[in-house]
Parts: sequence; structure tokens; C-alpha cells
Amino acid sequence: MPYYIGDVIKEETRLIARTPEKFRETGVDVRIDSRVEEVDEKAGAVRLADGTRLPYDILVLGTGTTPLLPGIPGETLEGVFTLKRFTDAVRIKAWLREVPCRKVIIVGAGFIGMEMCEAIRNLGIETQLFHRGTLPVNRWDPEFSQVVLEELRRHGVDFVTDTETRAVEAGKDHRLRLVTNHVGAEADMILMAVGIRPDVTLAKQMGLPLGETGAIQVNFSQRTLREGIYAVGDCCESFHRVSGRWVNIPLGDIANKQGRVAGRNIGGGDMIFPGIVGAQSFKVFDLEVAATGLDEREAVQSGFHPVSTLVWGNAIAGSMPGNTKLGLKLIADRATGKLLGAQAVGKAGAVSRINTLSCALWAGLTLDDVGWLDLAYAPPFSGSWDLIHVAAQTLRRQI
Amino acid sequence: MPYYIGDVIKEETRLIARTPEKFRETGVDVRIDSRVEEVDEKAGAVRLADGTRLPYDILVLGTGTTPLLPGIPGETLEGVFTLKRFTDAVRIKAWLREVPCRKVIIVGAGFIGMEMCEAIRNLGIETQLFHRGTLPVNRWDPEFSQVVLEELRRHGVDFVTDTETRAVEAGKDHRLRLVTNHVGAEADMILMAVGIRPDVTLAKQMGLPLGETGAIQVNFSQRTLREGIYAVGDCCESFHRVSGRWVNIPLGDIANKQGRVAGRNIGGGDMIFPGIVGAQSFKVFDLEVAATGLDEREAVQSGFHPVSTLVWGNAIAGSMPGNTKLGLKLIADRATGKLLGAQAVGKAGAVSRINTLSCALWAGLTLDDVGWLDLAYAPPFSGSWDLIHVAAQTLRRQI
Repeated sequence: MPYYIGDVIKEETRLIARTPEKFRETGVDVRIDSRVEEVDEKAGAVRLADGTRLPYDILVLGTGTTPLLPGIPGETLEGVFTLKRFTDAVRIKAWLREVPCRKVIIVGAGFIGMEMCEAIRNLGIETQLFHRGTLPVNRWDPEFSQVVLEELRRHGVDFVTDTETRAVEAGKDHRLRLVTNHVGAEADMILMAVGIRPDVTLAKQMGLPLGETGAIQVNFSQRTLREGIYAVGDCCESFHRVSGRWVNIPLGDIANKQGRVAGRNIGGGDMIFPGIVGAQSFKVFDLEVAATGLDEREAVQSGFHPVSTLVWGNAIAGSMPGNTKLGLKLIADRATGKLLGAQAVGKAGAVSRINTLSCALWAGLTLDDVGWLDLAYAPPFSGSWDLIHVAAQTLRRQI
Repeated sequence: MPYYIGDVIKEETRLIARTPEKFRETGVDVRIDSRVEEVDEKAGAVRLADGTRLPYDILVLGTGTTPLLPGIPGETLEGVFTLKRFTDAVRIKAWLREVPCRKVIIVGAGFIGMEMCEAIRNLGIETQLFHRGTLPVNRWDPEFSQVVLEELRRHGVDFVTDTETRAVEAGKDHRLRLVTNHVGAEADMILMAVGIRPDVTLAKQMGLPLGETGAIQVNFSQRTLREGIYAVGDCCESFHRVSGRWVNIPLGDIANKQGRVAGRNIGGGDMIFPGIVGAQSFKVFDLEVAATGLDEREAVQSGFHPVSTLVWGNAIAGSMPGNTKLGLKLIADRATGKLLGAQAVGKAGAVSRINTLSCALWAGLTLDDVGWLDLAYAPPFSGSWDLIHVAAQTLRRQI
């Protein structure tokens, strides 16, 4: 019976924390707050921080990611947080309530930065976001990032661009002060959301081969190159079906799937994780933001010759009440007409389109297919030509 | 330059009615209220009801459908309506307002019946629906039809089952009385929504080959078997990519696509309509109802060995506010594992899932693919295992 290290099943962390005894009933020995310091492969055992040694026949590495810090003085001061684990969320909520916080600074404009802007603004707390670039979520086309920026501003988030953080120090009006290359600012809490990297500390100690991404190499069965050792989730690579490359995209649904594959195979089954297409989404205030597949840069890196189009249209039939604007960008390969990627932004319908297009990417469809897909049309749900059709046929004509 | 007969572009009927002169500017002679009585193929001309003869080089038949009537005495009395054309809607609205109607009877529980229940109840008018069977929309699994029935009742629609209509006659408390095999009822308006059939009157006169469905046979270019004569929309057949058969599914988005294909080919292009997978949806009050592909009966008729599963789960992550129940049924082929069809019902997320699965059907994916599709997971939009994954993996285990 393998020990589960880390947070393979992220969403259930909370459940697990509450009920390790529940797992024990089923014969699984779940230990929380038990960091594995070392893996002794010869002996087939792990050593915990408290010195306990636990033997294993099969080892699963689900060590997840480590949040990055900018590497500046004062970044570990009380009141400076990163957000990765359930316990981080608990600590942040306690801090917001107990200090109490009148103002929060968020550093970084990725998924975590966006979701925390919404969470903190919704508590009525003044929120300032410092970002290295000029637009948030640079995975998306600048035209869409601009829409996200407007949504942030519409909800009162102060978005500060072109920032290099220099230090965190004690503040005057608030507990902390963030020093940057230009304007500094004070706040009662600072959230560092500048990125994450796969936590491969143990894997490195063991000399497990890592991929070019810095994450653990696995095969389609989630086996590492070492007999009896599996890796799943954010700490390992996944096969990207569009680029044909092994990538590291740390997302909860991928981790869940890989966990199931490893578990099934360890139990004697023969299950394959068939890879990903890079589907991802987040909500920020009233906006759905989603993407799938490759962007132009990734497409070029993968040997394609990308062409793209970005169209705006209706989320549902233009004549229907409740209609909102939807933006859709498609990226395709000029040589083959194959769909390579898609991005969408809107108050409604963005994730829905990206899911349909993720299936198209999964199946390797071309624009000739995507432009004629048979979708479940009714005016409350789309126009008779869905924006997917419009975008695909527009891009097809460019090739 | 071809003449457009009927309503190829249904949604634009209203626009066309208002602005035939707009089309004339572009050199297209659009004539409304101009029924073609006869096609003289030898002379290459059509004869209108008023005797006018119009020559043609190429003829496009877009004659649409004819609404069926039950064939009972009194069915053409004033106050009895069918709903097909824009002008029907105008007449119905005028009748509702001017009579004025306190009560409406709808006969038939298909798409038109469902949508009109909502429209009429939302006007605050008492609504009674008489249906031949025991459950509405029998395209769907009885478990889902039951959910639709509950939604109708929740909004005050009186749903009367197992009805055979016998006659319409003058009423006492209301203008009309519907006589049936059991309980009769009075109302100020009766909507007959008992089905439609392709309008092939002209095609039959011309001796154009019809398919087994009774609709006009066409090829992938929308050409009929007669040189220079095209057919598009509800009056013709479409190739069903899942069953591999030619079918007649009268829906606006299909008609739109076929119209584009015919137009392009007439203009000297070389465009193919690659077929359909049977995606369809409607909204009734707060419910999304959608389906795609084949149901079990159609699957058997097409030579498959269907297995199915019906699962209930969350439209979005169970932990999120605003989560609602979503039902999803999948049908697959036991021999090959190929997905054959899907149905969904819920307050949100049903159409979105059906669109993704329509793409899967389009590409001919198996349950092994569908169970692992990479979708854009975030808690406001789905669980980390979407209901699509749950249903596909559940059904896969049954094979």
C-alpha cells in the first residue's frame, strides 16, 4: 500500500485533514503534517522530518509545486503570504480578519493574482496589484488581457504596471511597505503570487530524471524511469497532444486524472493517461477567461506555422435578452489547417466554447471541421452560426 | 442569379420582409408573399400564384416544412393556430392581445410546445398542454422528460396526458372548445404543435427524388439529383455522421449552413456540407434541455449495439455557490466503445456539455477518449472531474 505524499488530490486536502481516521478504516495510513525528508531507495523506505522511517514497495511522488518568491529583502516578514495549500488559505483568512486588513497588495497577475483580487475586493478591502508587465494574464492575447484589466479596474482594483519589487519593510500607515523600482506602497498584507515551480526536491535527491521543464519525467502510465516509483500531478510532466511535447501545466484536473491512472496501475490495472491539450480557465469578477491548446509562440516552438484570428460576437443570439459580448481567438497551422489553440473572454459562454474546442484539439480537427461543427443551437444559447463557426471560417479563409 | 424561395435564412425572415429593397440594391430580386405554384423545368421558369413567370438558370428549393394538423373537425376555426413562419407569430401575438386571451391550449409537447408554454405563461395566461403520450419531449430519456414535466408544472402549466384530439368547436366560457378522447377543455386560443413534415409539394410536382425520410435527396454540395437544382434546409436531407444515414432534422442552424454551401457552389465555389450529428437544444422556463447523436432506438436501427448510462452530478464544483444539479446520459456502442449520443438536462451547463460531446461525435471519439478529455477546469465552471468524465468512465466500465 503506497503512502500518499503531498497533495495528489488537492480538492480533498481539507477532507483529508479532517478525517485521516476515515482513510485508516480503509487500510490507508494517511499522515498529514509529515514531510518526507529523504527516500532511501535501497532500503525501500522514506524518512520523515521527525525521524520516523516508513517502508514502501511502491512510491508515488505527488509533491506538487513550490510557490516562488521574488528573492527580495523582507519577503518573509509576517504579513507576507504565498497561496498554495489549504493551510495558506486558513492563515490568510485569519490574518485578514484579525489584523484587521484595510488594504492588500498582490504581486503578480496570473491565475492566483486574479482570483485573489476578486476574493479580497469582495471582502470590501482596498486592493492594489503590482505586475511586472503592462497587462494581466499574458497567456492571453493582449486584446483579451486588456478586457481583464478593465474588469479589474471596474471593480476597484488598482493595477500598477512595469513593477520590479525591491524589498518589503515595515510600513507607517499600514503594517508593511512594498518598495519597487518606481512607486512604493503600503498595505496590511502582501500576497506574493509571482509563479510556481514543480517541487522536485525529493526527486532530485533520488537522482530521478527530470524533463526539460524541470518536472519529473513520467510515461503514459505515470511511471518514472525508476522501477516502482510513480509521479503524478504538478510535480511531473504531461504529454501535450497538440505540440507533441512533454510539458508541465500545474492544474488540479490534470493532477486528479494522473492520480487515478497511477492508482489503477499500482492496483494491477493497465491504465493510460492520454495527455492534455492545455485547457484552462479562471473567473475574475463577472468575467470568464479561458484558453486551450497553443498560443502563437508555443506553436512556432513546436514547429508549426501559426495563423490566427480574433473575433467578437454574441454569447447567445443577438436578439435575446441577456446577450453579452464574447471574444474568441483561434490559432491554426497554415500548412495543414489544423486547429492549434483557442482563447476566449466574456461574461458568459467563454468556457463553454473553449471546452468544445478542447475536444476539437484532442481529436486533431482542422478548421474545415471546426467551421462546420454541429452544435446544439437555440437562441437562448447561441446564434445559428456560433462564434466558433464564425472564427473558424474566418481563419480558414486566411490560409 | 437564383431566386430565393421560402425561408432559407429563417432568422432573417423579418429583416427580409422589411427590406426587400435592400436586397434589390445588391442585385437580388427578393419577392415576399410570392408563392411558387409550379416549376417549368423545360422552360427554366417558375410560375407564381399571381401568374407571373420568372426565368431561372439555377433553382434553389428552400421550401422548409409544413406544420401538421391533427385532421379533426374545426381545426381551422378562427383562434386555432400553427406556428411556423414569422407571420404566424405576428398573428398569434395580435390574437393574444386583441381577444384578449385568458387561457391557451397547446396540443403537442415537442420543441414548439415547450417554447410556447414558456412564452404564454410568461404573459400570465393560463396554459393547458394536451399531449398524446405521458411525458413531454420523448426524444429524451423518460427520467429527463420527467424533469421537464416538473418544470412545466412548477410554472403552472396544466399538462394533460394520453390525449387524442377529436374536434375543435365553439366554446361557452371561452371562444373555443377542444374535444378529446377523455376530458375536453375550453380556451381562447388553441396552438396545434403536433409536428411538421418537409414541404416537398414543388419537389414532388417536379418528380425530384425524395429520400426515405420524405425529404428531398441532396448530395454534399446541396445539389439534388437534377442538374442545376439545389435544395437546402428543412425540406431536404442531411448526412448524419454518427448513423451514416441521410436524415431530415429540421433545425435553423443546419438550414443556415446548407444555404451557405449551396450559395457558394452556385457562385462557382466548391464547398461541402460535411453533415450533422443531431445536436439540438431548447430552453423551457429555467431549464436547459439538450441532446446530440443517436438515442438507443436510432442506434439499434443504425446497426449498433447500444449501452447507456445516466448520471446526475454538479453543473459546477459542488463547493461553489450557485451550483445546480445536472443530468447527463451517454449512449455508446458496446462493440467499438464509440460514443453514439448524449442527452443533458439542468438549470445550467447542459448545452455546454452537449456541445463538447457533439464535437466528440463529429470526430468519432470513443469512451476511452471522452473519459479523459482535457476540459478547462475551474471551480466556478465544473468539478475537477467533469460530469462528462464521470459518465464516460462509468459507461466504459459497463462494456
